[in-house]
Amino acid sequence: MERREFLKFGGIAAAGFSILPSGSLFAADQQKVRLGYIGVGARGMSHISEGVLRDDVEIIAICDTQEWALSMCRNYLKRKNRPAATEYTGSEDAYKKMLDRNDIDAVVISTPWQFHHQMAIDSMRAGKAVGCEVIAGLTVDEHWDIVRTSEKTGVHYTTLENVCYRRDVMAVLNMVRQGLFGELVHCEGGYQHDLREVLFNDGKEWYGHGVEYGPKAISEAQWRTQFNIDQDGDLYPTHGVGPCMQFLDINRGNRFTSMSSFSSKSPGLPAYIEHKSPGHPNAKIKYNNGDVTTTMINCANGETVLLSHDVHLPRPYSLGFRVQGTEGIWMDVADSIYIYEKSKKPHQWDPAKEWLDKYDHPLWKKHAKEAEGAGHGGMDWFVFNGFIEAIKRKKPFPIDVYDSVTMSVITPLSTKSLKEKNAPQDFPDFTKGKWTQRKNTFALDDSGL
Amino acid sequence: MERREFLKFGGIAAAGFSILPSGSLFAADQQKVRLGYIGVGARGMSHISEGVLRDDVEIIAICDTQEWALSMCRNYLKRKNRPAATEYTGSEDAYKKMLDRNDIDAVVISTPWQFHHQMAIDSMRAGKAVGCEVIAGLTVDEHWDIVRTSEKTGVHYTTLENVCYRRDVMAVLNMVRQGLFGELVHCEGGYQHDLREVLFNDGKEWYGHGVEYGPKAISEAQWRTQFNIDQDGDLYPTHGVGPCMQFLDINRGNRFTSMSSFSSKSPGLPAYIEHKSPGHPNAKIKYNNGDVTTTMINCANGETVLLSHDVHLPRPYSLGFRVQGTEGIWMDVADSIYIYEKSKKPHQWDPAKEWLDKYDHPLWKKHAKEAEGAGHGGMDWFVFNGFIEAIKRKKPFPIDVYDSVTMSVITPLSTKSLKEKNAPQDFPDFTKGKWTQRKNTFALDDSGL
Repeated sequence: MERREFLKFGGIAAAGFSILPSGSLFAADQQKVRLGYIGVGARGMSHISEGVLRDDVEIIAICDTQEWALSMCRNYLKRKNRPAATEYTGSEDAYKKMLDRNDIDAVVISTPWQFHHQMAIDSMRAGKAVGCEVIAGLTVDEHWDIVRTSEKTGVHYTTLENVCYRRDVMAVLNMVRQGLFGELVHCEGGYQHDLREVLFNDGKEWYGHGVEYGPKAISEAQWRTQFNIDQDGDLYPTHGVGPCMQFLDINRGNRFTSMSSFSSKSPGLPAYIEHKSPGHPNAKIKYNNGDVTTTMINCANGETVLLSHDVHLPRPYSLGFRVQGTEGIWMDVADSIYIYEKSKKPHQWDPAKEWLDKYDHPLWKKHAKEAEGAGHGGMDWFVFNGFIEAIKRKKPFPIDVYDSVTMSVITPLSTKSLKEKNAPQDFPDFTKGKWTQRKNTFALDDSGL
Repeated sequence: MERREFLKFGGIAAAGFSILPSGSLFAADQQKVRLGYIGVGARGMSHISEGVLRDDVEIIAICDTQEWALSMCRNYLKRKNRPAATEYTGSEDAYKKMLDRNDIDAVVISTPWQFHHQMAIDSMRAGKAVGCEVIAGLTVDEHWDIVRTSEKTGVHYTTLENVCYRRDVMAVLNMVRQGLFGELVHCEGGYQHDLREVLFNDGKEWYGHGVEYGPKAISEAQWRTQFNIDQDGDLYPTHGVGPCMQFLDINRGNRFTSMSSFSSKSPGLPAYIEHKSPGHPNAKIKYNNGDVTTTMINCANGETVLLSHDVHLPRPYSLGFRVQGTEGIWMDVADSIYIYEKSKKPHQWDPAKEWLDKYDHPLWKKHAKEAEGAGHGGMDWFVFNGFIEAIKRKKPFPIDVYDSVTMSVITPLSTKSLKEKNAPQDFPDFTKGKWTQRKNTFALDDSGL
């Protein structure tokens, strides 16, 4: 998915960036949300692009340690006729100065994963609502820390997990809530994405050339690849598990209770490097992250969830969703749906499209035009919209702090399970029992919350 | 799949049973294999039908406790101009009398699962080679017992697992062996089959009507359903895992080392019964077998295998195969293959058919015509052919005793893992270390072995 962002902001294609209608979504006298951005690299720029589309957003300040990112953002705002944002740079702590301002309502954090936790904690303590890219922290404790800080400060936190807003995912959620699948028993999802061109580059172009990572590389390969070297586990669980949580009312009448992970060996990246650059020393590195990591989760209400993490191998992109209940099943890899006694022929798949069109979610029906052309097939419009609307209406985020850490904590738990020879791990109840009473709030209607 | 057998042997359609060419496959002076059949119900009759197609097979004796099965078989042999087989019946031990004969080379066991182990042991002790339907025993110990008895008596044993011979599976095996997928890291398979009409009937017709099981039902529902009531676990692992074992050289340079299972709740069968017959007491039964059971397995060479068991829910049939390596991936649910830098477009699936046609296995190329119309899309012809050819050539079966019990022992191991809250289970090494030296022998060429 990063490729699309490259096409937007990277050298050659930036000029061709498509322009969305920027008409007033809200009356001019409504409150504006004043944002500070921590991190304006590839992913941060995507959120910047959502910000400039909205009349109810002011981009007050931006922060990055790398000049190429700041200048990319600076030029982009200028091109979009937006006021220049104050820039913070010079050290990894520079963002703290930005947090001292009292003219910022919320921050968008799009930095390398290892910085998310501390930046979010500092932001909440400074009274700024937080929209943080996926991965809330690196350890189980850091996830608890996010929850405690949000509870103590009363400041809201959300993960900017966009796949919950994918059009087919929301249509299926609509079908789930209307009982089309009957009682759900099993869901699957994952992150099955050939990241080989993301994890390595030549230090000049973002994707497609070279086998360097770390200081010799640019963009994500600068920092992300090190995780694949250091850590076995499901490093990126939220795209797969986020939608499954919505289908299963996790933290809202249901919860994850325990999980185990299995991981394969990892010849994928060495084979790629050896193929692209025979004899290169990066092919000799031991990549601890298994090429395919599989995680199974139990739910309090008896459902199971299966997650895949598969980013080192040549494969077409697929999040591998399945939703299965007593009345039917959706499998997105085959674009297929089967509903008992409603599908056209017994024991035969219907093309999913017929069902997905029929059950298109009201939120998508209302906003499809605004979302057209936004990042990741329009999902990014919706995740950003939910973020801004919740702040304006002073409501908890649609994906709140408990949901956010539940998605993200799967990474350290999977790593621990693998270290302990696939031993099951108890899943933390971040709600401390409140899950039994909490009600679903995500996308109940077309309001954007 | 049972439906097809019903169409062959059940009342209405028996007369329309298609006739295969029964020409000499082997010279008339070659040895004939003399068979005794223990169990000639639905599945047994399928093996009878394979037997009557071959000039090198004599059906000497048949054994069953139910007259309807014996008479179905008796009439079928007559219709096929085969000599009448001696019949053994009257008690569950009747098969032992058949084993006393010295004019039988091998037995085919197609009885309810709980009888397989003892019948196979008795048969081997009587010097009869064994072809046993899937499920070698109910406990881990019973699986060891099969191995020890085979080793002690020198009599060969095979599971009649047919999916290893599925045409697409064998084409993919051909591709695996030619290195198209690179180094394999992960495989998936399963038994995803809506068995609701198999597990319940009305005591008159085999499939499609009624919600009875046990004494009030006929055919499989008489005995199979009780397992779904009594036992959680992957009750039917061999169709999914058999092909994965071939892809990964299990017991032949590789082995399964440990596994865990997760299982969902099981509202599927009660929902079906309540739907078909509102208020029926069978909807109140607690079905201990989860609607979806997922098993993860580690291999000695670092690969992982994922198995699904999913038989209580409305869903199109799918064994859910995936084969994934450093160079490519096959997913049968989407009929798709992707091979790095060989597929037509980067990051996009090719239709599997193009690859499967190109790499059609030599054994299928040679025998497709004979297999046409045989059970389960032709697979049954090949599994029976391998069984008979090995006996004639006095060679171990292509799927030998070690392979057979490895496939089947997954059931009791998964049950134990579930009882122990998903704890990983060590996988027995039935070869006692010989797996490091044993060579692959399955389908190396078109010889049938």
